[in-house]
Amino acid sequence: MKNKEKDIRAIWAESEMVFIIDQSKLPHKLEILSLKNYRETALAIKEMKLRGAGTIGIAAGFAMAQAFSEFSDIDKIQKAKNIIEDTRPTAQDLFYATNLVYERSKSCENPKEVAWKTAYEILKKDIENSKIMGKLGAELIKDGYNILTHCNAGKLAIAGLGSALASIYTAHNQGKKIFVYVDETRPRLQGSRLTAWELSQAGIPHGIIVDNAAGYFMQNGKIDIVFVGADRIAKNGDVANKIGTYEKAVLAKENNIPFYVVAPTSAFDANCKTGNDIVIEERSQDEVMKINDKYVANNGSKAFNPAFDITPARYITGIITEKGIFRNGKYKIKNRKLE
Amino acid sequence: MKNKEKDIRAIWAESEMVFIIDQSKLPHKLEILSLKNYRETALAIKEMKLRGAGTIGIAAGFAMAQAFSEFSDIDKIQKAKNIIEDTRPTAQDLFYATNLVYERSKSCENPKEVAWKTAYEILKKDIENSKIMGKLGAELIKDGYNILTHCNAGKLAIAGLGSALASIYTAHNQGKKIFVYVDETRPRLQGSRLTAWELSQAGIPHGIIVDNAAGYFMQNGKIDIVFVGADRIAKNGDVANKIGTYEKAVLAKENNIPFYVVAPTSAFDANCKTGNDIVIEERSQDEVMKINDKYVANNGSKAFNPAFDITPARYITGIITEKGIFRNGKYKIKNRKLE
Repeated sequence: MKNKEKDIRAIWAESEMVFIIDQSKLPHKLEILSLKNYRETALAIKEMKLRGAGTIGIAAGFAMAQAFSEFSDIDKIQKAKNIIEDTRPTAQDLFYATNLVYERSKSCENPKEVAWKTAYEILKKDIENSKIMGKLGAELIKDGYNILTHCNAGKLAIAGLGSALASIYTAHNQGKKIFVYVDETRPRLQGSRLTAWELSQAGIPHGIIVDNAAGYFMQNGKIDIVFVGADRIAKNGDVANKIGTYEKAVLAKENNIPFYVVAPTSAFDANCKTGNDIVIEERSQDEVMKINDKYVANNGSKAFNPAFDITPARYITGIITEKGIFRNGKYKIKNRKLE
Repeated sequence: MKNKEKDIRAIWAESEMVFIIDQSKLPHKLEILSLKNYRETALAIKEMKLRGAGTIGIAAGFAMAQAFSEFSDIDKIQKAKNIIEDTRPTAQDLFYATNLVYERSKSCENPKEVAWKTAYEILKKDIENSKIMGKLGAELIKDGYNILTHCNAGKLAIAGLGSALASIYTAHNQGKKIFVYVDETRPRLQGSRLTAWELSQAGIPHGIIVDNAAGYFMQNGKIDIVFVGADRIAKNGDVANKIGTYEKAVLAKENNIPFYVVAPTSAFDANCKTGNDIVIEERSQDEVMKINDKYVANNGSKAFNPAFDITPARYITGIITEKGIFRNGKYKIKNRKLE
């Protein structure tokens, strides 16, 4: 299970097969899954074998390309697109990727080749974006800083160095002494499972805390800056991200701690005027009630499980994108076109 | 495991034996432990077989009485007192109980009898207080209200109806239609394990949420009022309670939702000028890293585990006590004397 930091790749493709790290098995087991067709890839997204806005987008692009490999009938490809889009409703990158691959390929002479080329371009572009975001974010991190992050917005979530964690990796690589407080991020524990694993691999000092404790550490002057990712960003700068992000943003503001969202512009959705327009995924109550398939909660009670929340723009110090840092709600957003 | 609501008693004593529900086994198993001497009772407190400020206090009082049964040598009793007080540092009721039993009994002709009488009086007084607090709290609950609570401040935590949950039980018994959102309360899940179990027993409609989701439900207008308990209250009205209470209080204020602390005046500590004077217990990182003895977090990472936090008085709408509701930081507090 020892991998060199640079070796962590959440997703790639070879000979029309898609390969992913099975994130549901981490950190206990590093297992690679091979996905032979669009249905298998779509199922892996749905069952959260992979997750993270960027990785979901790349997977959706590859799945779309697999559909173009499997079918020449456009109706079948359209049906495949619907199935892929039906897996997870909140991550904007998913819809960006399926639409881009579909629109570019559907009327070509060589749809299959264009589809795969486009899907690979999305991956390549994400890696480039991650690098730029990392540099911009690292400029905000001073030597000796204590950083809080929520969920996993690292290499597993976005190709390259991730989004929120890209800043942290870059600051660390610049030789800055930093410490990362990792929210465990219930219910799925992406913080204590995935972010902690990534930081361990990279040798970055960190400590896991329960989500309840983030406020305590902020209040006690232990947090200098907060970085989180985003699943979708509305036109007014409201951000949909992992459940609990809103809580941390409010607490950061209350304690005068800068709160940055890091996401490529592909996460912006010009069709959403405000956060109210963003669909919040409700996931199974079993994620709350059980751990490792065993009830931890009172069997017989019910649970609610919204997977994301909306952080209004007024709580966000800035949104770090590959095009620069947007501040004070000054976001001029068109849905991203691949250049 | 079906018990009538009225039958839930977290702790009692008979013939100098102390009996408790083993709360670490709930909700999966209802097991009664019998504790033969002060050491066993102290260990049960330390190992959190029982928990909750009031229940800890009663147990400490009984343990002190057991010490008076076991020893006549005052040095040995003093040593027992130290051991009992060394179990949990944050709950004020613990120190209140040990001191009261000790001071009243140490110079008597019949120390054993006085010690047991005093310990039983603490229990009786807590039951009476709970009833009064329940009535006061229920007056704030309107028909149709959605209520948020954090951790467990119910029958398992405070003799009688509990503190925060006393308001909820009373409102329910008054025929008001209410719904309770239960924070699961990581790391020890007192919400999803204990509060959800209590509410199920009582037939009160409720739903469990992860701690990350409390803000989401507040923001979406789903919460009308918040009730929590307290482990210790400083002279200026700052409240120490389960980790995460501070987060929920800040979020309630941000969303204009009344936030009430419910606790008997025995939780007030005149020796603490502000919350800064309250010792916060740091518990084992295993509570964060493992669930059911199995790693859920990345093995090799470390965790921080403060068990309580301080909610500054300015976030608290009122403190409901057996002597009335204190508002706007107007707290005139002496350490409680048993009348």
